[in-house]
Parts: sequence; C-alpha cells; structure tokens
Amino acid sequence: MSERPAVDVDRLLGRLAALGEIGAIDGGGVCRLALTDADREGRDLVVTWMHDLGLRVDVDGIGNVTATWPPDRLDPPVLMGSHIDTVATGGRYDGNLGVLAGLEVIEAVIAAGVATTHPLAVAFFTNEEGSRFAPDMLGSLVHVGGLDVETAHDTIAVDGARLGDELARVGYVGTQPTPAAAPHAYVELHIEQGPVLEAEGITIGAVTGVQGISWQEVTITGQANHAGTTPMGLRHDAGWAAARLATFVRELALDLGDPQVGTVGRIDLHPDLVNVIAARAVLTVDLRNTDDAVLGEAERRVDTFCDELAAAEGVTITRRELARFEPVEFDPRIVDLVEEVAVAHGRTVKRLPSGAGHDAQMLARVCPAGMVFTPSVAGISHNPAERTEPNDIGAGAGVLLDVVLRLAGAVEQPPYLDEAPPA
Amino acid sequence: MSERPAVDVDRLLGRLAALGEIGAIDGGGVCRLALTDADREGRDLVVTWMHDLGLRVDVDGIGNVTATWPPDRLDPPVLMGSHIDTVATGGRYDGNLGVLAGLEVIEAVIAAGVATTHPLAVAFFTNEEGSRFAPDMLGSLVHVGGLDVETAHDTIAVDGARLGDELARVGYVGTQPTPAAAPHAYVELHIEQGPVLEAEGITIGAVTGVQGISWQEVTITGQANHAGTTPMGLRHDAGWAAARLATFVRELALDLGDPQVGTVGRIDLHPDLVNVIAARAVLTVDLRNTDDAVLGEAERRVDTFCDELAAAEGVTITRRELARFEPVEFDPRIVDLVEEVAVAHGRTVKRLPSGAGHDAQMLARVCPAGMVFTPSVAGISHNPAERTEPNDIGAGAGVLLDVVLRLAGAVEQPPYLDEAPPA
Repeated sequence: MSERPAVDVDRLLGRLAALGEIGAIDGGGVCRLALTDADREGRDLVVTWMHDLGLRVDVDGIGNVTATWPPDRLDPPVLMGSHIDTVATGGRYDGNLGVLAGLEVIEAVIAAGVATTHPLAVAFFTNEEGSRFAPDMLGSLVHVGGLDVETAHDTIAVDGARLGDELARVGYVGTQPTPAAAPHAYVELHIEQGPVLEAEGITIGAVTGVQGISWQEVTITGQANHAGTTPMGLRHDAGWAAARLATFVRELALDLGDPQVGTVGRIDLHPDLVNVIAARAVLTVDLRNTDDAVLGEAERRVDTFCDELAAAEGVTITRRELARFEPVEFDPRIVDLVEEVAVAHGRTVKRLPSGAGHDAQMLARVCPAGMVFTPSVAGISHNPAERTEPNDIGAGAGVLLDVVLRLAGAVEQPPYLDEAPPA
Repeated sequence: MSERPAVDVDRLLGRLAALGEIGAIDGGGVCRLALTDADREGRDLVVTWMHDLGLRVDVDGIGNVTATWPPDRLDPPVLMGSHIDTVATGGRYDGNLGVLAGLEVIEAVIAAGVATTHPLAVAFFTNEEGSRFAPDMLGSLVHVGGLDVETAHDTIAVDGARLGDELARVGYVGTQPTPAAAPHAYVELHIEQGPVLEAEGITIGAVTGVQGISWQEVTITGQANHAGTTPMGLRHDAGWAAARLATFVRELALDLGDPQVGTVGRIDLHPDLVNVIAARAVLTVDLRNTDDAVLGEAERRVDTFCDELAAAEGVTITRRELARFEPVEFDPRIVDLVEEVAVAHGRTVKRLPSGAGHDAQMLARVCPAGMVFTPSVAGISHNPAERTEPNDIGAGAGVLLDVVLRLAGAVEQPPYLDEAPPA
C-alpha cells in the first residue's frame, strides 16, 4: 500500500510564508527573538502543525520541541531540525526552512504509507541565534548535555529578562529530561547564508563542518569629558578606543586571510552624546575560522591589541567570553550520503564548510550528524532581504527526504549507517 | 546708607548644592536635560529665589527666564547669566554657577543698598547643552534673533519630543517677545571645563573669545549580513565604516594640531547585534577651532574622507549639520575690565579662549559681552566628577560683582562703557 514519498514544495512554501507572517517586519523580514511573544506565536503554530500530523510532541526543560513519527516509538529516531527564532532584522528562511522541511519530509512519509526501520523526528531548538540570550545554539547545547538546564535558565537577556522566566511566560517549560537520549542520526537542511553556492551556480551544499566561533564582549572604561575643552593629548576616550578596536578586527581578519572573518556588530557608547567624550563603550568581537589554531591566534592578537590600546589611551579594557565553539567536522558518511543523493537527483553539489554556527554542530557531539545547504540569493542573510529560490527549496527538501529515508531504512533498503560502520 | 557690596560665598555654595540635588545622579553629578521634569523642577527653584529677592521675572517664548533689579526698570540692564540645563551625566557647576553667581551679585547689591546707573539682570537660557535638542545654545540664539521662535518650537529631541510641546508641558512658554531688546552689556561667569587654569595655577580666566563649533550627524547605510558567512571582501559594513570615520577624526585633529579638537561622542549601530554586520550607523562628529579657516579645512577633510570611505566599502554616507558657529571674539574692553578687576583683587589672571560654546557668544552679537572663567579640578567637566574649589568660586563671583558694578555704574564711578568708547 506504499508509494515512493515525495515532498510537496507548495505546501512547504505555504508553511514558510505562514510562519514568516508572525513577527513580520518591513521588507519581507521577520523579528522573532527567542522567547518573545512573537516566538511563542511561531512555536504555537508549528506545534499545531505537528499535532495535525498526528506526531508525538515532546518539550524539554529548555523549551526544545521534538515531534516523532510513529508517535508510539521511543527508540532513537533519525532527527531533523533547526530553529525558528530569528535575529531582530532576520529573514524567513534561516532556521525555519530546516524545521518546516523536516515536517514536510515526515508528512510525505506518512502520506506515502512508508514504514521506516528507525522512527523519524523533527525538532526546533531554543535560542539558536543568540541575539537575545548568549550563547547562541543554547537549546541544542542543553539538548546534548553541554550545559545544564538550571544554568541555562539563569541566563540574562540583553533586555534584562531571565531565560527561565521568559520560557515559563511563553509556556514552553517541558518535562522531557536533558541531556536527551542520543538520536540515531541528525540531518539539518539550512540556507547557506553566504555567497558561495550561488556564485558557483551550485544547488546543493554537502556541509563538511562548521567554523569555530569566538564571541567576546569588550567593555572599555575611559573618562567622560567636554569635547570642546579637552586637548587631544589629555583624553581617555572610550568611544575612540572602541572604534580603533573595531578597525583592528578588520585589519586582523585581512591579515590572517580567508577563511578568517572578524566582525564588530555591536557598539554602545555612554553617554552617547555629540559633545561628551565617551566614558564607557561596550562592543562585541565575533571571530570565526575553520582552523582552531588560527582562531586561537586571532584571539591572542585581540588580547595583545587591547592591552596596548588600554595603555596608550589611559583606559581600562575588560573582556567577557560570550561564546566559544571549536570547529566541528560532520560525520563523513553523512557528507558522502548527501553528495550521493544530490547526484542521484541530478543536482549540482559541492562540499563546503559552514561559516555560521548551527544546531547540527551540537548534535554532532552525540550522534552521526550532517547538513544540507541550499543557496542564498546574493549571499544575503540576517536581513529582511534573505531569500532562497523556490526551486532550490524544492531541491534541498528532496535531498533531505532521501537522505533521511536512507538513514532511517525504507524503500526496501536497510538503514544506511547500520550497514556502513564508521571508516 | 550704602556699603560696599560683597558676595556671600556660603550662600552661593548653598544654592549650588540645593540646585544640584535636583536630578542628582551617582557620583555627585546631575542629569537635568532641557525641558525634562528635572529641568522644570530646577527652573521652579531658581524662579522662586528670584521672586524671593523681589526681582521682576520675565519669561520669553522659548522659555528663557530673566530677572531684573530694580523691578520697575525697563531700560537695558547689565545682564549676567548662563544656563541650568545639563548633559545626561553632568556636574553641578557647568552653567549653574553663572546663573547663581548672577543672583548672588544682585542680592549683594540689594543688601548693600547700592544704586546703579544701569539696572542689573540675571538670566538662564533654554537648552544650552544641546544634549536633548539641537543646536546647543538654542535659547540664547533665539534671544538675540538668530533663530525664530516658531522654528525653535518645531525642533525634535533625540527622544522624539517636540520642543514647543515640552516647553508648554513644563510651563515655560512666556510672553516676552524675541528677539529681546539688547542689554547694555553681558557678563557670564563659567567654569573653564578644561585643564589650562589649574595646570598653570591661575585663579581667573579673562575669556577672549569662543572656539568655532561644527557638529555633523553622519548616517552610514550598508548591508546587514551574517557575520560568519560573509567573506571580508564582500562586506558593506556600516559599523566598520563608522569606526573608521571615528578613528579618522582623531587623526585629523592630531594632524591639524592644537587648538583643533575632534570628537565622535555618539555611535548608534543597527541592528547592533554580535553576529550581524551592521546595516546602518549614525554617529556625530564634533570639530572645534578658534581659527575659522582651519575649522573649515577640517570640515572639508571629513567630507573628502567620507566620499572615499563610501566608495571603498560600498556604503552610502549622508551628513546633516546639527550646529555651526563661527569663532567669536569678546569685546576687548570687557576682557580688559575682567583682567583689571582680577588684578585689583590680587588674583592671578590669564587671557584665554573658550573651548566650549557659551550663551555669551550669542549675546556678543547684540551687545558688549565677556566671560570670567574659574578653574576646573583636573579639567574635568560634563562628568559627575566636575568640580571647582570653593575658594575659586568665591574669587570668580567677587570678580563678577565688581565687573558688573563698573559696567552698571556704581560706587561713585560712572558706567565703564559709557566713559570708554569702542577702540
């Protein structure tokens, strides 16, 4: 009574559009910061869809939501997923695509009447973006046991709210224990968020791993003074020091060369007035590299520069680590499988590392994990203009479906990993 | 029945302390931004003191308050004054000293029973600091006819409020016409807000003029993008461009040399997040010089640099003039008189220009004007730690008193300016 499952691209696009209406902002973008009212509304919509498909919906103590098919199966599933929180000026695809494509894969399998050896599941993880609470990928970090749930609850948002309070407020404190039991495997479909696939005219990315990430918050304390009467040589200008550090981060990234990137995305001055030399500056430094040794070198150079800057300007500089993740390599069997399925679908495919952090790197700590990338138009992401062409979404979801079917064991094939021991 | 008038330093210090309690902030500072509730409370206290002395209190259409003795005299007074608004993290002396010392001078004259040829008056002018509404010195600018009151009322605050609405809200829309009739002369006592007098061990500054001021607001529009996936060479980073402009302003001031100063006191990034390349930056550039030609050269170099920066980073940069005041020279007769009185009082005195803008430079457009400076401890101002020693306050108020008596004609001397035609 079974047929070959196939994704319904229009249904997937429809859900992406419906979810994108929640927290919609000008320019087609979305603002659903983690555990805000908009995030709650988005969560409720996705959970409704999960229930509509007859899936078993489990919520854990950090608000991660997992939906399983068949609903009575408790053994390790082939898990798909991503996140539905966004940055303040985000797009409709980042994260959302992986969650809704996972839902689409399960709906396609149910509709086709296919039974799989391993159950299927799709999850969305809390606070992946890290825009409201640090670190990013917090929900999946707790999921795999990298952070205990009590410590996570005590995280304070940039707006001063406590994570545990916000989680209770939006009604997503669940009873599933963390760390969770390891899935059989994990696969995440995601937009590239970079320009490489589009620039090379390639439809599918077989993601080999994730760049290491170093986030620091830097606080510079100088001396407020009158902008007109204080000679240049007598200043202790926290605003100038922040600007100089931001320009140094650019110099550093250029000096170390690709794939090193460095960004100062946040600068807050105090008192932030035209005629007052800033007494205090708080800024963030985001450094990433696929090579942990080079990333460490970049961090050391920032350290040294801050020390020299503090001495030269007569300011104090303190630093706080917001996040630090080593580079991750995905399971080579899953990278191979993604490539193999893409080729079988007649898609162009390229192996590449991810420049962004993803929940998949957390799951990689506990099970074979991998990712499928689809192209981002003009490489734009974290921006209302973020877009992936419908044809590319269909191609990515189709690859995800067949990768998952091979991993789960179906269509008269045994589960892929069960027959192929680690190399 | 008259005696020689003398200032009561303790009474003046008491009023400074009482006014400093309104809007008090940590560290002994004050936050009384123009036309806020705290400013209203400060205004009400000073007006109460004016009424207690039996002065005639007049309020004009921009909320400038002038108190005159004798109350029935309508001919041009010798006017003292300054402002009582502060920056967000200001001190107790900036502006307040000039207003309360003026009140003290009048109280001393009344107490001594001295009659002067010209009446005496003391004023406080609205929004001198410019921290809430641009431009700074707005009240005195309207007072002398440099800006019409309707345009001034339509000024929008950094917090979005309209000046005219805020003025009505705090109850300071008066009926006196602007521009006002020119005073006979204007003298303002003010803290130096810089390090020169203290560094040289001098008690009294005879202020020769005021630096020219150029304030610009610069808006940089780039492209929001993911901090991890966007190669350095493909960025249009408004945050980096803002930082680079801020470091250029420092380079420019050092290159042009003293007395050129340049400050970027305000930088606001959007969306201001650790992992998003900034789409937009708004920053301010404050340039000052006593030589208008050099100040113009500084402005032109900023223009050129912005054009080059925009082209190199692929961002757009727009600029808006917030304020532009040419350097001002005070009436040399009043500079001489301040010096002469200080010497007669046995004080050390130095002629020097002001690095900050003051209401006196507006009054200088319509009448002979000058200023008396007292030292600032460590040169610190626009900071809760701003301080002037009580002995120096006494010295400054004493010089102000005798300068005003000479200008007004008293103690058996004819009015100073009436006997000494302009050179």
